[in-house]
Amino acid sequence: MGEEVSNKQIVLKNYVIDFPKESDMLLKKTIIKHKVPEDSLNSILVKNLYLSCDPYMRNRMSKREDSYIDSFTPDYPITGYGVATVVDSAHPNFKKGDLVWGITGREKYSLIKSPETIFKIQNMDVPLSYYTGILGMPGATAYFGFYEVCSPKKGETVFVSAASGAVGQLVGQFAKLSGCYVVGSAGSKEKVDLLKNKFGFDDAFNYKEEPDLNVTLKRYFRDGIDIYFENVGGKMLDAVLLNMKLRGRIAACGMISQYNLEQPEGVHNLFCLTTKRIRMEGFIVFDYYHNYSKFLETVLPKIKEGKITYIEYITEGLESAPAALIGLFSGCNVGKQVVVVAHE
Amino acid sequence: MGEEVSNKQIVLKNYVIDFPKESDMLLKKTIIKHKVPEDSLNSILVKNLYLSCDPYMRNRMSKREDSYIDSFTPDYPITGYGVATVVDSAHPNFKKGDLVWGITGREKYSLIKSPETIFKIQNMDVPLSYYTGILGMPGATAYFGFYEVCSPKKGETVFVSAASGAVGQLVGQFAKLSGCYVVGSAGSKEKVDLLKNKFGFDDAFNYKEEPDLNVTLKRYFRDGIDIYFENVGGKMLDAVLLNMKLRGRIAACGMISQYNLEQPEGVHNLFCLTTKRIRMEGFIVFDYYHNYSKFLETVLPKIKEGKITYIEYITEGLESAPAALIGLFSGCNVGKQVVVVAHE
Repeated sequence: MGEEVSNKQIVLKNYVIDFPKESDMLLKKTIIKHKVPEDSLNSILVKNLYLSCDPYMRNRMSKREDSYIDSFTPDYPITGYGVATVVDSAHPNFKKGDLVWGITGREKYSLIKSPETIFKIQNMDVPLSYYTGILGMPGATAYFGFYEVCSPKKGETVFVSAASGAVGQLVGQFAKLSGCYVVGSAGSKEKVDLLKNKFGFDDAFNYKEEPDLNVTLKRYFRDGIDIYFENVGGKMLDAVLLNMKLRGRIAACGMISQYNLEQPEGVHNLFCLTTKRIRMEGFIVFDYYHNYSKFLETVLPKIKEGKITYIEYITEGLESAPAALIGLFSGCNVGKQVVVVAHE
Repeated sequence: MGEEVSNKQIVLKNYVIDFPKESDMLLKKTIIKHKVPEDSLNSILVKNLYLSCDPYMRNRMSKREDSYIDSFTPDYPITGYGVATVVDSAHPNFKKGDLVWGITGREKYSLIKSPETIFKIQNMDVPLSYYTGILGMPGATAYFGFYEVCSPKKGETVFVSAASGAVGQLVGQFAKLSGCYVVGSAGSKEKVDLLKNKFGFDDAFNYKEEPDLNVTLKRYFRDGIDIYFENVGGKMLDAVLLNMKLRGRIAACGMISQYNLEQPEGVHNLFCLTTKRIRMEGFIVFDYYHNYSKFLETVLPKIKEGKITYIEYITEGLESAPAALIGLFSGCNVGKQVVVVAHE
């Protein structure tokens, strides 16, 4: 039947209405069998190492009918991307000792019953935590969103919002590798400095210090924007629409500025889509996972050659997970927010 | 030097701020030479027969910087699409007696100095006025917008707003010819009846009688909308976003509900673009005119075979042009609004 071990879990206490708080989550002590139950075909039991904090998780904290993604269940562990090591497996593709990344629980040990979004980690010569970010879901989001949705061409102008985040910092670097001019926005001087000095953006600004985003964008894009990689929504999108070029493309990746509002802000300048023949297209990385290996083959060498850099903001211990997740929405983190549960 | 004849013109009196009024336009009596001036290379002189009233013209009545289209000039004749007969020509492609359609003036006679958007009419076995509508700009808009931007597939569900207008009535018929299920919205019982009984829409509703457009759309599209042909913007777009299917497409053709507002309404549900992977794309028919003959070859036989019908709302006399144009925005016209200046 298997030995029982103590487990710790971060569970959702109740559905969140507006701005999430640490107290919406709870640390719960439980016990778990240290083996996959015998009747559980295809399950794997993992020990979690790194947990990813991603903006989309906010949408799962609310009770939403008809959402693109299931809501979390109160009193059950919050789930999300992470890196883990396999402790026991009833699945033919995984064996004890394998390192994996994918959807796991915010807990010490997770029994994953349908490991459809679990990928085996083959390359261990980069930090394992990278599989929560640059080599995981956010990295693939940046890669497929930029190359497949934005169709960049050399010499085009690119604007990225939330540019120092897990996705944004990569989009900017992909844009530079594609011969584009790229400007990013972020919410602090420190982040703006990173964009310019570490990630190689041509320019960057702190949106919190800009009273009129339309004027700001005109300053950085005198002839307009070809590609907008949209991570924030709301007022920024409205200002961008006024500054897009003819036949521009907007990849609607996320709208973090809107997730904590009960009623999203109104966007007024959509007629620009018509007058400028703009294509605005939403996408979700799930739809591109079948090409994950292509992404890895492109990006992994660039990391090893130092042509792409990545900044993580790591906090220690499962106990820090609620604050780390909430910090995304107040902009505390600089770079990809990761929580270490265990180092091995 | 050529004989002088009297001309009558509808000129813009002053730039319009919100809702246009008849008194924003003026009938002006002038004289015009009945020949193309000798030094005017490539000009043609036409006698106008039919004038088209189109929603986009509202945007030219305001003073707008940075618009996709030039503003009209106060005290000069308003320009727009029309059908005309060539009186004199200095252009190698046109000769006296040719029938043409394209951008002309709202006046009895127009001297067209650069006839780049003038097309010679080759098929005269349909009503000539059709070249202001089904065989002119609105027809090409419906055709290229639906087939090229929406990429329809048999069995898909299509929603068309302003569906009894010059463009909408055709989009609905193209959708039926493509094996789609199509519902249209319009602003009166009479228009709704036309959609259902004349144009073959599967269903139609009067948006003015619907207190909650989200609920309305759920009634007609239980499983959601694959294609939205957007003619109105604002609240309708917001409700449609909630009802789009995964990987739906929105062709942003126009947003007539917004043209008379100083600040367009806010659209709140844009995050649906991401969650449902929707492509929303603006387009303008100018970009497709090089394929006009392809359009004509497809649509002309269908008209002759009675497989496509078209309804026009014709008013008599240049004097009726201001009221006819304004009527578009109060929804007076049923079908394509045309003004007859002369019958031959």
